[in-house]
Amino acid sequence: MSTPNIHGIIGYTITPFSANGEQVDLAALGRSIDRLIDSGVHAIAPLGSTGEGAYLSDAEWDQVSEFSIKHVAKRVPTIVSVSDLTTAKAVRRARFAEAHGADVVMVLPASYWKLTEAEILAHYRAIGDSVGVPIMLYNNPATSGTDMSVELILRIFNTVDSVTMVKESTGDIQRMHKLQLLGDGQVPFYNGCNPLALEAFAAGAKGWCTAAPNLIPQLNLALYEAVLANDLNTARALFYRQLPLLDFILKGGLPATIKAGLSMTGLEAGNPRLPVFPLGDAGHSQLQGLLTALR
Amino acid sequence: MSTPNIHGIIGYTITPFSANGEQVDLAALGRSIDRLIDSGVHAIAPLGSTGEGAYLSDAEWDQVSEFSIKHVAKRVPTIVSVSDLTTAKAVRRARFAEAHGADVVMVLPASYWKLTEAEILAHYRAIGDSVGVPIMLYNNPATSGTDMSVELILRIFNTVDSVTMVKESTGDIQRMHKLQLLGDGQVPFYNGCNPLALEAFAAGAKGWCTAAPNLIPQLNLALYEAVLANDLNTARALFYRQLPLLDFILKGGLPATIKAGLSMTGLEAGNPRLPVFPLGDAGHSQLQGLLTALR
Amino acid sequence: MSTPNIHGIIGYTITPFSANGEQVDLAALGRSIDRLIDSGVHAIAPLGSTGEGAYLSDAEWDQVSEFSIKHVAKRVPTIVSVSDLTTAKAVRRARFAEAHGADVVMVLPASYWKLTEAEILAHYRAIGDSVGVPIMLYNNPATSGTDMSVELILRIFNTVDSVTMVKESTGDIQRMHKLQLLGDGQVPFYNGCNPLALEAFAAGAKGWCTAAPNLIPQLNLALYEAVLANDLNTARALFYRQLPLLDFILKGGLPATIKAGLSMTGLEAGNPRLPVFPLGDAGHSQLQGLLTALR
Amino acid sequence: MSTPNIHGIIGYTITPFSANGEQVDLAALGRSIDRLIDSGVHAIAPLGSTGEGAYLSDAEWDQVSEFSIKHVAKRVPTIVSVSDLTTAKAVRRARFAEAHGADVVMVLPASYWKLTEAEILAHYRAIGDSVGVPIMLYNNPATSGTDMSVELILRIFNTVDSVTMVKESTGDIQRMHKLQLLGDGQVPFYNGCNPLALEAFAAGAKGWCTAAPNLIPQLNLALYEAVLANDLNTARALFYRQLPLLDFILKGGLPATIKAGLSMTGLEAGNPRLPVFPLGDAGHSQLQGLLTALR
Repeated sequence: MSTPNIHGIIGYTITPFSANGEQVDLAALGRSIDRLIDSGVHAIAPLGSTGEGAYLSDAEWDQVSEFSIKHVAKRVPTIVSVSDLTTAKAVRRARFAEAHGADVVMVLPASYWKLTEAEILAHYRAIGDSVGVPIMLYNNPATSGTDMSVELILRIFNTVDSVTMVKESTGDIQRMHKLQLLGDGQVPFYNGCNPLALEAFAAGAKGWCTAAPNLIPQLNLALYEAVLANDLNTARALFYRQLPLLDFILKGGLPATIKAGLSMTGLEAGNPRLPVFPLGDAGHSQLQGLLTALR
Repeated sequence: MSTPNIHGIIGYTITPFSANGEQVDLAALGRSIDRLIDSGVHAIAPLGSTGEGAYLSDAEWDQVSEFSIKHVAKRVPTIVSVSDLTTAKAVRRARFAEAHGADVVMVLPASYWKLTEAEILAHYRAIGDSVGVPIMLYNNPATSGTDMSVELILRIFNTVDSVTMVKESTGDIQRMHKLQLLGDGQVPFYNGCNPLALEAFAAGAKGWCTAAPNLIPQLNLALYEAVLANDLNTARALFYRQLPLLDFILKGGLPATIKAGLSMTGLEAGNPRLPVFPLGDAGHSQLQGLLTALR
Repeated sequence: MSTPNIHGIIGYTITPFSANGEQVDLAALGRSIDRLIDSGVHAIAPLGSTGEGAYLSDAEWDQVSEFSIKHVAKRVPTIVSVSDLTTAKAVRRARFAEAHGADVVMVLPASYWKLTEAEILAHYRAIGDSVGVPIMLYNNPATSGTDMSVELILRIFNTVDSVTMVKESTGDIQRMHKLQLLGDGQVPFYNGCNPLALEAFAAGAKGWCTAAPNLIPQLNLALYEAVLANDLNTARALFYRQLPLLDFILKGGLPATIKAGLSMTGLEAGNPRLPVFPLGDAGHSQLQGLLTALR
Repeated sequence: MSTPNIHGIIGYTITPFSANGEQVDLAALGRSIDRLIDSGVHAIAPLGSTGEGAYLSDAEWDQVSEFSIKHVAKRVPTIVSVSDLTTAKAVRRARFAEAHGADVVMVLPASYWKLTEAEILAHYRAIGDSVGVPIMLYNNPATSGTDMSVELILRIFNTVDSVTMVKESTGDIQRMHKLQLLGDGQVPFYNGCNPLALEAFAAGAKGWCTAAPNLIPQLNLALYEAVLANDLNTARALFYRQLPLLDFILKGGLPATIKAGLSMTGLEAGNPRLPVFPLGDAGHSQLQGLLTALR
């Protein structure tokens, strides 16, 4: 399997809704994708946590997936999150994404019942057997309820040919160390924890999966470039500069904070779906202050 | 709101699937409901964790909900779990259940993004505003990812009129103590943690929500009756007798173990939906041994 | 080894200090022991957590140990906590206690460095080889930093002849279930978690190790008697009656709250040793209120 | 208070014992100190976790403290860990260390009973009021049982003049971020978690407190120098080279592994005190292999 060279800043898209929350606003989605690409991100990732993928109906999911891929139009690679609770549904989504031109599919082992290692491996194998595009394995126990050990991740990586990349979002840097050591430096890993951006790059992460470029793309990109330039002092300074905003969007919830931030910059994307609240007044002021300080 | 008197052994139903896993097997579901009622359970609870509610399509969910309520036919109260990721979908399910005759709806604040207390309260209020039947609030952080403090539960209980019962499944007996003390003994609570059955009754739980009556209804009922008879020694002996089985079905996963156990007693209910595996050979032998020892 | 029949309410003593905190006040200690025995407790346990054993110099520890055993004078059994950080020091304490007439020694695997299972087993074996009195193994990760699994506890119980009793203070009732099931009902276990008193007895605990009898002995004893009388309803009512006080002394810290409570009833026992603070004014009022309500 | 410039590699000493484990072997201690200083470490820290300070009698502690300070003889600063369970004892140790020439004292809020924030603050204040040397506040919940939040650490830092440095050993890099952001970059922090060495420096740690220089001083120093030279790529390569050894000594226990490693290089330091075991045969082989690979 030829894997596209996924690296650098991988920008997560939100899913804009109409004012009443009932329809997806594809025009706004298109504008948000264009902004991200124009700012220089190295890849686009629709339908992740930020994209409220879990809150969409199947029809909506298909609509957003198809539209996003077409709108990116290969300007950069598109990485579509195809996670779903049953293996059958995740396979369906993976096939759909591939059929519509996704370059990579991302798979989180979403669960209701805790899954055994054998069940998780079989889930990845079933998806891998169903598509020809590479899979980015995604570990995020905070949202999936399932924490994959590094040993399990490497077992899947070594067993399922399509799994060629690992996104680690536990926020525990030791996982990346272990991936590097036990994987003999052959396992490309990506950081999904915003406040770990500096250290993940220090530890050798190949990319940073983040919704922050919707709001502060230049700072995100500059951090990556400083790392590429082997300039730790600059990277550290850039990281601490953007850290308050990274902390804010994480703690405030990505859909709510990113949608609010986009609205402040003229891109109306609606609210998150209930039960998730939109950003409140206090949060609005705080976000406005953070954005102003970074301009 | 007049709340039906929910108490005692509340039996959870599985959702049987056809051999290929694609269709719901309503005939088998009917037989499993009849067994539970004939054995003497005090209420029936379809579409809970055991019922793989999270793994069904909306159409399947409706089908199982409608069929279950009709099949119970008021022989005992029916408590339908209507949890869903968005408030809109949970409201829809609650209305559907009510319209088809459910006596109670059970609501777990399922989440992908962590919810704030205000978001959880609003979620319950929205559902409460939409239906006329009582709501059993359900706390189970292991499956929902959201742990509601006793203080929050009481706030919801005191704010949303329809919320008249609490199902606690953390397995932490101190939560029940706190519900009892802070709720001035006015909050009916139910235990959802099988290996806590004895102590929850000791602490004053009004009922035990469990899938175990699919396999060992007499032992479950006898434990409750010993408690009603104020006979702690008998209750303790009955509890320790059934505890190995209760531990087994919890650790092995309820859908897999209950379906396997039903099959051993002549009721074929198919397999759980992937990625959840059916019970393996070793588990089968162990379960057979446990059931034999209890006969 | 003949084990004295340790059961029921096992009362923990505080270690009274002089007003400047520098000397142990043996006269006050004697009075507190007399109170406990006169109230009817079934055993006395000096130098436990409540007794600030960890905060005493070796000379003070010896003084309190010797005095306590002599003062109890076999009216009831004495169980001396002999835990110390090194095996050599714990052995010395165990021998000292035995030489002065202790009926049982209690051993918590105190640690600075996390201990392996082999290290913990060797620690118990070394103490067991050094004394002729029975050992009560004590598991309390909150203070020792070491959590012994039930499997490890049973291994020690089955390997070290002197270890004939288990005190469990994790507050997790499932540990007691496991001790009962895996130990075939042959392992006497004692509860060390005050707010678990009712459920531990329900689950078969042989005794309750508690500092509460310094303040409310009649309620503690009545709970035990209700359990012996197989009267769950009375036990439950008695438990909920005393639970607010049990919660209070646990959360407020046993040395501070028990010493304050003793002072309210005319037994001046000084303050805990710094850095532990004596009970503050708000705590005093709350404790006074709780005690008044229980009189 | 003038604080000596503590930075770079701060080497922890072991406490060598005689063959029977009963006496401290001061001659071996002197040799180990000389080795560390000759190798280039920037400071010496006796009586920390590695130095088994918690396992020594008061007389031994005094002996090791006095000897270490004299033997270092101001070649580099000496940082003496003076933690003890009671405030009075910690004050005594701090005064003793200062009287014998310590440049800095390090204080971990050791506890048996969980301490409140007010108790911890008062503990630091009492020590600060008793000595004229600066205090390095040390947070290590894994050994102390007390986890100080960044907010509490900053409150102590801002309240107690003597507290001028913070050693963070939780291994959670976000704590360092928070110290940097909330402390406006004015709080010098030091890393005490070996496998976090690279990222802590990336995040701005001023030094690395570690026992590793007993075994691989050149690699530890080279990592620090690469960071000073703003050469992230070299720092990363050096870090991954030494990481297997850093992981090994952490997981194997510092006293056992460092003493074994010293013995392999001709410096006999005896065994850790029981209940801590010396390194077993398998560990010996593994350590030998790691050291050989790094030579």
